[in-house]
Amino acid sequence: MNTQIHHYCKNLTKKNRRSLEYLYKKLKHNTKYYAGYPPNTVFDYSELYRVLKFSVNNLGDPFYGKNALSSHNIECEVLNFFASLFHAPKEFSGYITNGGTEGNLYSLYLARKKYPKAITYFSAHTHYSIPKNIDILNMPYKIIPTTNNGEINYDFLEHELTKNNKNPAIIVANIGTTVVSAIDNINKIKNALKKAKITDYFLHADAAFDGMILPFVKNPPPFRFSDGIDSITISGHKLIGAPIPCGIVLTKKIHVASIGKIIAYVKKPDTTISGSRNGITPLFLWYAINRIGKNGFKLLINEGFKKANYALKVFNRNGIKAWKNKYALTVIFPALSSQLLKKWNIPTGYGFSQITALPKLSYKMIDELCKDIVAESNKKFQLQKNKKLIF
Amino acid sequence: MNTQIHHYCKNLTKKNRRSLEYLYKKLKHNTKYYAGYPPNTVFDYSELYRVLKFSVNNLGDPFYGKNALSSHNIECEVLNFFASLFHAPKEFSGYITNGGTEGNLYSLYLARKKYPKAITYFSAHTHYSIPKNIDILNMPYKIIPTTNNGEINYDFLEHELTKNNKNPAIIVANIGTTVVSAIDNINKIKNALKKAKITDYFLHADAAFDGMILPFVKNPPPFRFSDGIDSITISGHKLIGAPIPCGIVLTKKIHVASIGKIIAYVKKPDTTISGSRNGITPLFLWYAINRIGKNGFKLLINEGFKKANYALKVFNRNGIKAWKNKYALTVIFPALSSQLLKKWNIPTGYGFSQITALPKLSYKMIDELCKDIVAESNKKFQLQKNKKLIF
Repeated sequence: MNTQIHHYCKNLTKKNRRSLEYLYKKLKHNTKYYAGYPPNTVFDYSELYRVLKFSVNNLGDPFYGKNALSSHNIECEVLNFFASLFHAPKEFSGYITNGGTEGNLYSLYLARKKYPKAITYFSAHTHYSIPKNIDILNMPYKIIPTTNNGEINYDFLEHELTKNNKNPAIIVANIGTTVVSAIDNINKIKNALKKAKITDYFLHADAAFDGMILPFVKNPPPFRFSDGIDSITISGHKLIGAPIPCGIVLTKKIHVASIGKIIAYVKKPDTTISGSRNGITPLFLWYAINRIGKNGFKLLINEGFKKANYALKVFNRNGIKAWKNKYALTVIFPALSSQLLKKWNIPTGYGFSQITALPKLSYKMIDELCKDIVAESNKKFQLQKNKKLIF
Repeated sequence: MNTQIHHYCKNLTKKNRRSLEYLYKKLKHNTKYYAGYPPNTVFDYSELYRVLKFSVNNLGDPFYGKNALSSHNIECEVLNFFASLFHAPKEFSGYITNGGTEGNLYSLYLARKKYPKAITYFSAHTHYSIPKNIDILNMPYKIIPTTNNGEINYDFLEHELTKNNKNPAIIVANIGTTVVSAIDNINKIKNALKKAKITDYFLHADAAFDGMILPFVKNPPPFRFSDGIDSITISGHKLIGAPIPCGIVLTKKIHVASIGKIIAYVKKPDTTISGSRNGITPLFLWYAINRIGKNGFKLLINEGFKKANYALKVFNRNGIKAWKNKYALTVIFPALSSQLLKKWNIPTGYGFSQITALPKLSYKMIDELCKDIVAESNKKFQLQKNKKLIF
């Protein structure tokens, strides 16, 4: 259809227009109070919108052949950027997914193809996509408790591995839990495997958010291929920011050999979970990494650490017990009341609330939130109608 | 980042700009020779681009609670439109997916949850996403040969069902094969199940392309919930057209009860395969169904039938053996040579090539393609450089 109207199209009704306006108003308003959650909302891809008039499709392995209506060339540039960031081997494989869940499903699928008898181990704070994907893949698993700061409990892990050391192991390491941005230590995990005498294992790093922080800090904890991982997923719409959820999954090429049958219809190997894949999010990511660049990310993250430390200081000075993990941009504090959650768009669960020190979070928002929490504890918080989230 | 440049952003380099221009040129050029494949390329969603400045996210069940940054209200309107089109029961469930593959994975997952011991049956012409999803889901299956026109061979099916009638059955019916748009007859499938004495079964309709044709023709073959299906998937970027692959999956609500645990993090039941889901494609689909409407789709499809019949006439008159199935917009003819495929973006496999009588296919293109085929058979086809596909 054309805005200038195609012969089989009609105009939107007044009611349709009102729905559109309502959506726009809702998104604009609620973004103002979006102090938590990992998506970075500060972006502008408007230069690229003109590509949206085409039916772009990145179906199949981006490195193998090019489709007539794809942005595969661009996608490969993006993958090479991340391969370098994550110290991938020369022979790597991967693609741009619809988000972390698809990348996790893909990695676990490859792991199961390699070790059909494996048991999968992951901590209790692991993202909900892991148990979901494991149920889809029909794999046995063990959930391991966490330490106080949210890392997998290495002693428990070792204990479970030893108990089941006749089976290969698939381990999902959280490179930043959703809950408190805790980072599972890859070296300690490898040590537990060694002590349990398991040599057949597949180590997947779920690095959805923090995977974009660690490459830009000094002496990061181990999380890369050079540290022994077999696959990694990170999100594109989180630290980088995009209007459409997306992610990157990378793995060693050798793991992909078991899948990837040729699709007769399009003459390309099918090494992805999705069939048709959008060619727009690779372009968004390409644009972001070229415009922000490694130095830009370093700056964004260092400013985030400063802001997170400011939040810690202000909160604790006001009697709100706030803390964060060492490499986290996420500040944790006691769960907000349902009243405050009518104004603030902040993830709350497991007894915690959290804010994320991304460009979207201003110093003013931190102060306002702090004031609201203090006011409420003094029974003085009043929800102003014009500050209520719109649904 | 901002086009007006955020403090941690820099400008694109000249090389970056050239890559962008190249991509744009490639997409524009290749769209001109995109005579086959089911995506409709005639659309214009530019009115909606302003929503792309937000981090929209439709995570979770669209019918259960609303997220602060979602277009769930719009998504529900779209789902209701398709529920009515497919005669879904009042108690239905579903969501907008990233494409047919996700919808097929979801449906097969629900089917396996209902019947863990089931065997899945599908024809040899079934879309490659079905064997892929079945491998992901780790399910036993039987591939059934097709009839000459591409339908599942009902006698073979009955034979296999009878042989395995101690197990429940999951059947994937092609409501339009990718290869020749052949439609598996739901009544004949139900009859085969009855003769095999199988009462525990799950009937999934993969209606990626033709699912948007059949509701608009007189006396369509059976393909809806009222005909006995349990789930259906259709693509959004095919007959409807969208710059981002997407799809709709619908099922009976009762089938979703087995999944859908609450996600603590966002307090919504997780009844989807994806985690974060884009909120843009629901908006595109909403826009398309409101601007085209049922009458518009009827017109688009009737014009397509006329064009397909024209192609049949012109091709056969010129000695090219072309044919199509009754409800198909897809015209089949002998496989194009590799030389012709350097100009024409046309799917070719199983010995066939095909063109699709959508608005993108003009009468002029049909004539030009026919001329090219005839010229080549007379060894007179010359590939003009400016008409070669760009990769």
